[in-house]
Amino acid sequence: MLIRLGIFAIMERKTTGISDIAIYLPHARIDLETLVQHRVEENPRLERHLERAMRTTGQRAIRFPQVWEDTATLAASAAHRLVTGNPDKDPANLRYLTVGTESGLDHSKPVSAFVEGMLQKAGVDVPERLSSFQVQHACAAGTLSLLSVSALLQASGRGEESGIVMCSDVARYDVRTTAEVTQGAGAIAMLVENDPDLVQIDLSTQGYCSTDVDDFFRPLGSKTAKVKGTYSMQCYRDTLESALQDHCERAGTTPREALEQTDLFILHTPFRNLPETAMTGLLANHLSLDAEEARDFLTQRGLYDAIDAVAEVGNIYTGSMYLGLAFQLYNQYKRIGADIVGKRILFASYGSGNTMTV
Amino acid sequence: MLIRLGIFAIMERKTTGISDIAIYLPHARIDLETLVQHRVEENPRLERHLERAMRTTGQRAIRFPQVWEDTATLAASAAHRLVTGNPDKDPANLRYLTVGTESGLDHSKPVSAFVEGMLQKAGVDVPERLSSFQVQHACAAGTLSLLSVSALLQASGRGEESGIVMCSDVARYDVRTTAEVTQGAGAIAMLVENDPDLVQIDLSTQGYCSTDVDDFFRPLGSKTAKVKGTYSMQCYRDTLESALQDHCERAGTTPREALEQTDLFILHTPFRNLPETAMTGLLANHLSLDAEEARDFLTQRGLYDAIDAVAEVGNIYTGSMYLGLAFQLYNQYKRIGADIVGKRILFASYGSGNTMTV
Repeated sequence: MLIRLGIFAIMERKTTGISDIAIYLPHARIDLETLVQHRVEENPRLERHLERAMRTTGQRAIRFPQVWEDTATLAASAAHRLVTGNPDKDPANLRYLTVGTESGLDHSKPVSAFVEGMLQKAGVDVPERLSSFQVQHACAAGTLSLLSVSALLQASGRGEESGIVMCSDVARYDVRTTAEVTQGAGAIAMLVENDPDLVQIDLSTQGYCSTDVDDFFRPLGSKTAKVKGTYSMQCYRDTLESALQDHCERAGTTPREALEQTDLFILHTPFRNLPETAMTGLLANHLSLDAEEARDFLTQRGLYDAIDAVAEVGNIYTGSMYLGLAFQLYNQYKRIGADIVGKRILFASYGSGNTMTV
Repeated sequence: MLIRLGIFAIMERKTTGISDIAIYLPHARIDLETLVQHRVEENPRLERHLERAMRTTGQRAIRFPQVWEDTATLAASAAHRLVTGNPDKDPANLRYLTVGTESGLDHSKPVSAFVEGMLQKAGVDVPERLSSFQVQHACAAGTLSLLSVSALLQASGRGEESGIVMCSDVARYDVRTTAEVTQGAGAIAMLVENDPDLVQIDLSTQGYCSTDVDDFFRPLGSKTAKVKGTYSMQCYRDTLESALQDHCERAGTTPREALEQTDLFILHTPFRNLPETAMTGLLANHLSLDAEEARDFLTQRGLYDAIDAVAEVGNIYTGSMYLGLAFQLYNQYKRIGADIVGKRILFASYGSGNTMTV
């Protein structure tokens, strides 16, 4: 994909952003119909709960890691695809190698250090003159890492430098719970450059909202996450509204204008239906659209391309929004070709616990 | 402290940096003489090893948390001191609240989210319109967070905005090992602003070196860190040399010139003697100084103010370098007063696993 998009591009500022996106998903996959059938055979009383969970979430299948895979191998596999898919980009220009994750492998050593070693062992000429770190804030960590690396590339004042930002996670919940249907695993690697080939990021108009809430945890010592589902969905919708307001104040616009002037919407997708529900609420509030009008509005703006992709893979946490973005751009390009150039994308990245960046 | 220093300041660039530093150390403290005496009573064969460890490290005492303290309360205590110590700074301008740590409290929720809640409960008017995240790469995580927040503040283009960067850790090793004498606990909070009051950071000349080495871990499920002491010291010295070379290429200078033109040196101090040993090596290589000349050179340049402070507290991991920096600036100011303005500081921040930023 070598499409040049603009996201709220302000041309007098230096532009930094994403030049390419690579995806790695573990091969192991299970249909949720199969999983639910098995759980109901074990305990028929779960039937009603699990069928409601499938209906509420819209999820259809999950990927899960093989026994030899973990957060670092998933990230390295995506990064390897990114590097080998861009033979014209010189790895010697790499200055940042970062991972956003909430399923790290050590309290001290970042996943990015393991990835650096694996890429080098795979023959990629990763220079040692780079900065390597891991960012954590639930599912928003990939976005927070992407914004940091973009800002650092701008601040360094060297146009040729680049970064690889990875999002990698294994999402596990307790078995025989309704959360189980939203598991997933996978990684995204993004090439971040000045004057990018794919998506320009405007670093001057992010809207933020962060509060100290207890909607989701993975406590130390637990291999599975604990989530208050309904409460977390409410947190997502509330912070989306607040962060959008903050973005609009910074962009000198109103929520109504921002929503109308956006060509493509991409939101964190913990499960297929949440971005649709949240956006339907926003569109009702600010554009007075009813549910059907909202669906048409969002269809034209690529939301379903993104969330339908996540429904088939599961929640890959930090990478989920970027998995959706890749499918959204691919499908939009198939539909409108070169007209995609210059389109404006609104990103909304949510992390439990919590933070929202619009 | 309201001293204005310049660190490789290039005046045509926007300057961002540290306006103030607050320190919080837990009150509980033990002299290493006492600890070692107790360990030797338990097992007399440890005497030789522990006495050598005390001699090698130069450590004299450790702080440790009370039972009601953890990484988040330490960070919040430091941040609270920072905010209450700067009543003229409006918390409403806060856009970033970040923590660098290697002793986080949850795989998903960042320590910064807990801190936001605690500050608000303590009556600090922390705005929700901010970005909150945690950065991880061993002891370098605080520096990596500081650089990210500085770059993000520059990229946003809004001069009045600020960030609070915290470094907070509890360093624990297995008891009855030589590593035990390098334990510690404490937190640092730094106010980061454009046009800063204390230290300007030049974001264009960081030198980096990161490699995938296994010198130090804290595996999931372990409350204590595992360190290959001698190997880790070698990694520290090697990456210091490489990152200094990289810094010099970016600054258009030589290691000799950079060392000569630096007024104050500050290095990550996992134990008192390591920065001295590493700097003595650098000064021998590049300035042909012998050990005694190196000691004079480093005394004039404030290194001992920094490392002697850490010797009394223990290794507080991410905050260690900034604890030393605060004592260094305080003592230099007592010595030379306003002449401190415009002095050039060379920072060297090491994180095991590993990464070095000069």
